Parts: sequence; C-alpha cells; structure tokens
Amino acid sequence: MAKQPQSAITPTRAENFPEWYQQVVKAADLAENSDVRGCMVIKPWGFAIWENIQRRLDAMFKATGHENAYFPLFIPMSFLEKEAQHVEGFAKECAVVTHHRLEPDGKGGLRPAPSAQLEEPLIVRPTSETIIGATFARWVQSYRDLPILINQWANVVRWELRTRMFLRTTEFLWQEGHTVHATEVEAREETLRMLDVYADFAEHTMSMPVIKGEKTAGERFPGAVSTYTIEAMMQDHKAVQAATSHFLGQNFARAQEIKFQDAAGKEEYAWTTSWGSTTRLVGALVMTHGDDDGLILPPKLAPAHVVIMPIYRNDDERGEVMTYCARLEQELAAQSYAGEPVRVRIDARDIRGGERKWQWVKRGVPVRVEIGPRDIEKQEVSVARRDSAEKARSWPRGQLVQEIAEALSGVQQHLLNRAGELREKASVRVDSLQEFEAYFAPKNTEQPEIHGGLAYAHFVDSPEMDEKLKELKVTIRCLPLDDTDEPGKCIFTGMPSNRRGVFAKAY
Amino acid sequence: MAKQPQSAITPTRAENFPEWYQQVVKAADLAENSDVRGCMVIKPWGFAIWENIQRRLDAMFKATGHENAYFPLFIPMSFLEKEAQHVEGFAKECAVVTHHRLEPDGKGGLRPAPSAQLEEPLIVRPTSETIIGATFARWVQSYRDLPILINQWANVVRWELRTRMFLRTTEFLWQEGHTVHATEVEAREETLRMLDVYADFAEHTMSMPVIKGEKTAGERFPGAVSTYTIEAMMQDHKAVQAATSHFLGQNFARAQEIKFQDAAGKEEYAWTTSWGSTTRLVGALVMTHGDDDGLILPPKLAPAHVVIMPIYRNDDERGEVMTYCARLEQELAAQSYAGEPVRVRIDARDIRGGERKWQWVKRGVPVRVEIGPRDIEKQEVSVARRDSAEKARSWPRGQLVQEIAEALSGVQQHLLNRAGELREKASVRVDSLQEFEAYFAPKNTEQPEIHGGLAYAHFVDSPEMDEKLKELKVTIRCLPLDDTDEPGKCIFTGMPSNRRGVFAKAY
Repeated sequence: MAKQPQSAITPTRAENFPEWYQQVVKAADLAENSDVRGCMVIKPWGFAIWENIQRRLDAMFKATGHENAYFPLFIPMSFLEKEAQHVEGFAKECAVVTHHRLEPDGKGGLRPAPSAQLEEPLIVRPTSETIIGATFARWVQSYRDLPILINQWANVVRWELRTRMFLRTTEFLWQEGHTVHATEVEAREETLRMLDVYADFAEHTMSMPVIKGEKTAGERFPGAVSTYTIEAMMQDHKAVQAATSHFLGQNFARAQEIKFQDAAGKEEYAWTTSWGSTTRLVGALVMTHGDDDGLILPPKLAPAHVVIMPIYRNDDERGEVMTYCARLEQELAAQSYAGEPVRVRIDARDIRGGERKWQWVKRGVPVRVEIGPRDIEKQEVSVARRDSAEKARSWPRGQLVQEIAEALSGVQQHLLNRAGELREKASVRVDSLQEFEAYFAPKNTEQPEIHGGLAYAHFVDSPEMDEKLKELKVTIRCLPLDDTDEPGKCIFTGMPSNRRGVFAKAY
Repeated sequence: MAKQPQSAITPTRAENFPEWYQQVVKAADLAENSDVRGCMVIKPWGFAIWENIQRRLDAMFKATGHENAYFPLFIPMSFLEKEAQHVEGFAKECAVVTHHRLEPDGKGGLRPAPSAQLEEPLIVRPTSETIIGATFARWVQSYRDLPILINQWANVVRWELRTRMFLRTTEFLWQEGHTVHATEVEAREETLRMLDVYADFAEHTMSMPVIKGEKTAGERFPGAVSTYTIEAMMQDHKAVQAATSHFLGQNFARAQEIKFQDAAGKEEYAWTTSWGSTTRLVGALVMTHGDDDGLILPPKLAPAHVVIMPIYRNDDERGEVMTYCARLEQELAAQSYAGEPVRVRIDARDIRGGERKWQWVKRGVPVRVEIGPRDIEKQEVSVARRDSAEKARSWPRGQLVQEIAEALSGVQQHLLNRAGELREKASVRVDSLQEFEAYFAPKNTEQPEIHGGLAYAHFVDSPEMDEKLKELKVTIRCLPLDDTDEPGKCIFTGMPSNRRGVFAKAY
C-alpha cells in the first residue's frame, strides 16, 4: 500500500469513506450524538451553516411568492388512519404520544400517569400533509382563495433504526412547502418551479451539481402522482437525494376535502403539491467538498468567509498586530460578497499557531489570513485558500481588500467545477447487465469504499430489475429531465425502453 | 349605556376585552385554532411578525456574543427524575412518547404497536435545561472552555388545560438561552445582561414599556436561585410576563455534573443561566397597541410598513395608476428604516375599496396609501397613519418618499408613548389593604373587563398575602429593579418592609 501523505483527518476518504465522514463532522465541530437515541446535537458551527442554508433558501421561496406559517407538531392518529394508503410508506415508524402527564411511580421515579392517557394518541409529525391539508380545507372556499403558497420550517421525527449524523436522524430539521392550486397545470408548474429552485440552490449556493429527474413509481412519495428529485453524487460515488418536489394531483385534496367553487360556481377538488429539503444538505455538503484535511465550505454558506490570525511573540508586538488586524477586519467586512457583507473573524486565541490554523482548516473557512510584524512592515498579509493545495502566499494588503469578493467567487466556482468534473468522470452509459454488474462491483482494494458511480441505462420497471438492484445494493435514482428520448433495450429484461434512468448506490 | 362609535371589531375593548382579543387575532389573520387540542396554526401574517421578532432578537443575542445551536426535541424520562426537585413546577403536565410504531388495530384503524413500546418513555421538551445541561457537561472540561453562550430557537410543549391563542398554548415557539460560566459574578452579569436585552427589545422594537424586576421566591423558575422578569401592562390593565432570565447558581451544574478545572487545576462546579421569550410576545403586542379597529403594529415588527392601494374605474385608468404605484413602491423600497429597506406592498386586488382598506386597517399596517387618477394629476398621494385617529390626508408624492422613515419612526415612538401614558395612569402606590382591595375590585359596569392596574405596595411574602391575593385573583409581578429602598409596612401583615412590589391581575 502506497504511503499516504499526512492529513488532518484519519482515516482518509480513500481508506474508509464512512469513517472519514464521521471524523470530519467531529473535527469541524458540526454535530455530535445526543443522549437520545438517533437524535443529534447540532453544534454552533454546524447550525450556522444550516442558518445560512435557511436564509438563502427562504429568500428564494419568498421571491417565488411563498409565505411562511407554522402548523402543530402533533397529528391526531385518526388523520393518519384516513390517509392509511398514503402513509403506508413512512408513517408507521413514528413517535407516538399516549399520555399528557408524569406522576411519581412510588419507587422514587416517574411514570406516565395512567389517569392521563390520551383518548386518541398523537403522532409527532413525520411530515405535515395531513394536518396542513385539514387546515387548507378550511382556508379554501372559492377559486379566489387560490393559489395558497405556504412553507414551514420545522422539526420532524421518523423513527430510524440506523442513523448517521445529518444524513439520517430520528429528529431532523427541514422545510416543507405545501401549495394548493385551482388547476392541474398550475400545480404541475409549481412542482417543477420548486424543483428548479432546489437545483439552482444546490448548484449556485452549495456548489453541488445535481441531476433533476423524476422518480419511478416505486420511489414515489406515498400518495403522490409524480415525485421529482435533485440527485447529487458524493466523493465516494454514491448518490444523495438532496430535495424532492411532489405533484400530489387531487389525491390529498380528496382525502382531506380541499374543495373550491370555480368561477362558474361549480365545486371542484383542488390540486396540491409539497416539496422539502432537510439538514441532510449539511451532510451532502461535507461529502461533496470535504478533503482529507476536513471540511471545505462554499463561501455562500460559510459562517466565516475569512479568518484572521494575528501572530506575535510579545505584548509590544501584540498591540501593533492586533490594531492592524482589527483595521483589516473592518475593511474586509465593508466589502460585500454575494449580496451580503464579507464575514470576518479574528482568532487571537493564545494557542499554538499550528493548532489554531488547523482548527480553521478542518472547519473549512474559505480564506485564512495570517499577519505578523514582518507582514505589517511590508504591508502584506499571508493568504491561504482552503480549496487549493497551494501553500499560503503573500498578498499586498490592499489587494486582499480589493479582491476578496473575487477570491470568494473563485472558491465558490472552483468547488462547483471540481465536483462537476468528478461526477463527469464517474458517470457512464451502460448498455448491458454484465457491464452494469462490473461497474458496481467493488474491485479496487485500496479504495474499498469508492467505486461505481452514476450509470445511465435503459430500463423497464420490473420485478427482474428490483431483484437485481437489491442484490447489487444499487438503486434507481431518477429519470433525468434533461435527457432526450432515445430508443434502447432494458438491460434487465431486454424489453424496449425509450429513456435511460440513472442508477447508483445511495445514502 | 352610551352609544359606541362604529368600529371594525366587535365587541370593543371596553365591552369585552378577552373577546375583543380573540376577534383581533382573527380579523388580523394572525392565527387560528388547529385540529389538535390547545395547539394553534400561526397564519402567514402572524408568522411574519414572529419572524421579525426572531430576526431582531437574534441579532441582539449575537451582538452579545451568543451562538445558536439545536438540541433534541425529546428528553429521556430519567433526566426529569434526576431533576425531580426542579421540574416539580411544570414538567408533570407534558407530552409523553411511549411507542415508536403504529400498526393496524385489526378493526380498520391504527394503534400504538405493543411490540414497539419504548423501554424508557421520552418527554417532548417543556424546556431544555436537562438535555442541554447533559451536553454542556461533555463540552466543559477546563476554564478555557468557558463561558459557553448558546441560544436555541425551538418549539416546546406544556400540556395546558385552558389555552388562549399566543398567550397560552400547548405547543409554542420560543428561544431559550443557556449559558455556563466560571464564576458567580459572570453568571449574574449574564442574567441581567439578557434581562436588559429583553427590556430594550420590548421598549424599542415592540414599543411596549416594561418593568424590569425580580420575582419573589414563590414565582421563581423551579431550580433557579433568582428569576428576573420584564412585565408589561396590557390595555385591560392586566400584566403580562413578557420574558424571563434565570440565574441558576450551581443547582443545575451539580445535578448535571457540569464541572471544570480552574486555572489552578482545581475541579469546580460551573454557574449557569437560562433565559427565554416566546410567541406570547405576539399576544402582548396585540393587547398593548390594538384598538377597536384591530391590530396596530410597531413599524419595526410590521411585515409591511406601507400598503399602496391603487384606485381606478376602468382599464385605461388602471394602466396609468398601476405604473405610478409601481414606481412609488420602488422609490419607497429604496428608503431604509431602522436598518432595513422599507417594506412596501401593492394591493391591486379587484375588491370593493372599503373592504380592501379595512383589511389592512385590521392587520395594523402602519401607513396606508391610496392613489387614484386625480392624485396622479396633482402628484399627490392620500396617506393614512394607522396609529392616529386622523383621516387620510394628501401628501406631495416626493414628500412621502423623503419622509417615510421619519413617519415610521413617528409611529414607533407614538405607540411607546401612548402605552407608557396608559401605564402611568393605571399605576398607583397603595399603602393599605383597604385601598388595595378597592383598587382591584371591578366597579365600572360599563367597562367590566378594564379595571385595576399596577399597584406598588409594601409586602412581606407570607401565607396571609398568598391567601388575600388568591381571593382577589391578584398576583405579585416582581420587585422592580429601578425602585429604591424605602421603609414601610407590609399591607397584608403590618410587618416591616423596605421595598415595594408590583401587584396586578395577570395573564
């Protein structure tokens, strides 16, 4: 085995990708496991990334006409009974509230008070279609009340057996959009508009290229007529479903009695959509950009764009250096990048320079600046970009201020390009089952975790396909919207097919 | 009974204050009851107010060095057992999760699956001291790790029997600050710093004057050494506790083993604080400023500062008027008020002018502008301020643009002054029990709901006082921090006292 270069994270991506992921989450101080099974604590650095995701996504939702609202955490069990066919897929594993009081158990502890058992159990929302739909049924009377364009930022709970921080946790944070329309055309437009919003956000804010596509019937949201997805490829060549947008047709409207009088006075069922994205995006960010030294953040989502580290040996030097750093901080913060002031931190902690520097490397701050007395003499600063392997180099101080926005743009674009190139390299068109099997079989023992990628293949949804995919632990991700029709044969059954699907191992 | 002037809200404040409140919440489209007992749906206009509260409070928390994080929704029951002495006060009435799966009940419905009963029940957080403290115990090792200054925006659940929208609901939204310090002095400073932040926010953002004070022992947060509060007076002369800040001493640190090595290497228990404010603030806003025509919003929290209503009779006029309105909107939005762009909406809905106008009156938008063809000819606009009884009057269009920020400042200040004057009028110093009883006895049959106010009286915490207060349905709100010592006699017991407390009926 070739000797690995030294890196801040052990193991490296090539050695053990899943463990590398956990170590980056830890080293970047993003989150940790909590005392509650399957639930995580999102630490300040991780939460600040989520706040940036929220702020930018929220602005995009508002720019497309949506308003935020808030609906109850609890859903009466009877609401799920009504929807039983829809919730089949996910609402069974959920947190069930059965009592509303604790009382002493007579042994020095507590117990749910038998006298305070709820007549009807409440479910902690795994998603809110039912409770929001019941509300919409009251809001919608006439076509004049439509469209209703609502988004909610909330926590949801799905009881998961195997959890991994950010990627799959019992409780997670998300946003869920819910809209009601008078016509099918409008509802379909809305579904695709929000898919575009997600794709735009992924590419231009997260620097994460995605494939927009439609899910096959088996992968649809329960109750949806069509489910659309954006799929991203991680550095281990596995796919992540980064957000979904559902056209629900009139299914939920019928179950929930969302009806309106049209202009002619006739009563009609409405057409609804829902769409969501979650804290999983933070996990996708880590696995898309991180390297063997830790996290790498696209500037638009970085809690700090620039960290300034003063270097001094004694109190005399300290005074001079700190004054210089504070002025530079001010000048940088007066610049703006991507519509917001440049975010600068000074880290003047008195710890060994190496440790201090590596903390910010591992946390993924786009630009690091070190300043000592000699830099001040020369009116220079030592600048390192997190996205490049280059060593730090000296910049004239004025140039840094002038070009900081450009440098951040450069990082943002470079990350997108790099991820795009990796995806390009790991995408193949496959035309036989043999090729397909070979593609997804681990071969390289030095990189046991990294193999396969995105395989574009003709297929027909069939039991043969399901069985083979299960055997290979491969999934169908979507039918890409940007693809054109092309006659071919299903690699699993030989049946005729006119579109390729994207297949991949997936989170 | 004197004839009431016409008003948009029935009943008026004087007729039936509690019912007036419910009607304003409804007419302003702030919230509605949901299908889940005690839980409300916060509608877009109400939620936008909460978002403004969040954004401004959050900036104040960050400016004082706090970072946001997120902790689990669920708390293991054993955590509450450990804290039994602390949670005595509120943690018994709570939502208890006992199962993690639903299954068919064999009768066409669902039931909690007996095979999926949790070994240890989970409690939906009523507050997070225990789960956050357990996390802090892991984060804190050395004095170098301190202080820890964390805030969380979250939903919490307290099972309430009698609920009222915003003021007391089973689920509500809030923020909870949790901090850890190396010394008592620092922790006490933090407790009062955050009380000041709340008071500053209440007065200068909500235009709601408050009394900063300390709670008596009986009103303390369970487990706290000292609880501080800001108390506001509503228009029915009742008090609302608008936010609290707790100095927890070492009580929680001992129960949760939050320990650190000091500079000398000695192990010490840390000192903690917590502080919170909730969606209740929206209710307080309604009752502080609303009038018989509905909500009145302080501009800093208004989702829209200005609503522009075009008036036209035909399509020709419509084109001209809409162009003019759009330009005015742009010019106004280019102005800034209180550090943010002026928020303008055009309401071009084709509904009767009166209905349209009254919707915005009831929603409390600070400034309404109407523009018709004749206004355009004269380069004028018709402007009405929501906080004044004055009729709309004509302004030169350029003047509106130039002076909009000043006008909004005027509204913001006027609301604070008006509320301050009302509080002044309804505050008395009381020196005998007889006076006290007379003050809180309803007398005015025309205003059955509005009587009493804030009574400043000498007292000694005693069973006699508790009994009398219970009888009169009066509560002790706090010992005002701004008051000076003054020798006197407890009005309930005749015992010597050197400080006056504030007494009031309360929400």
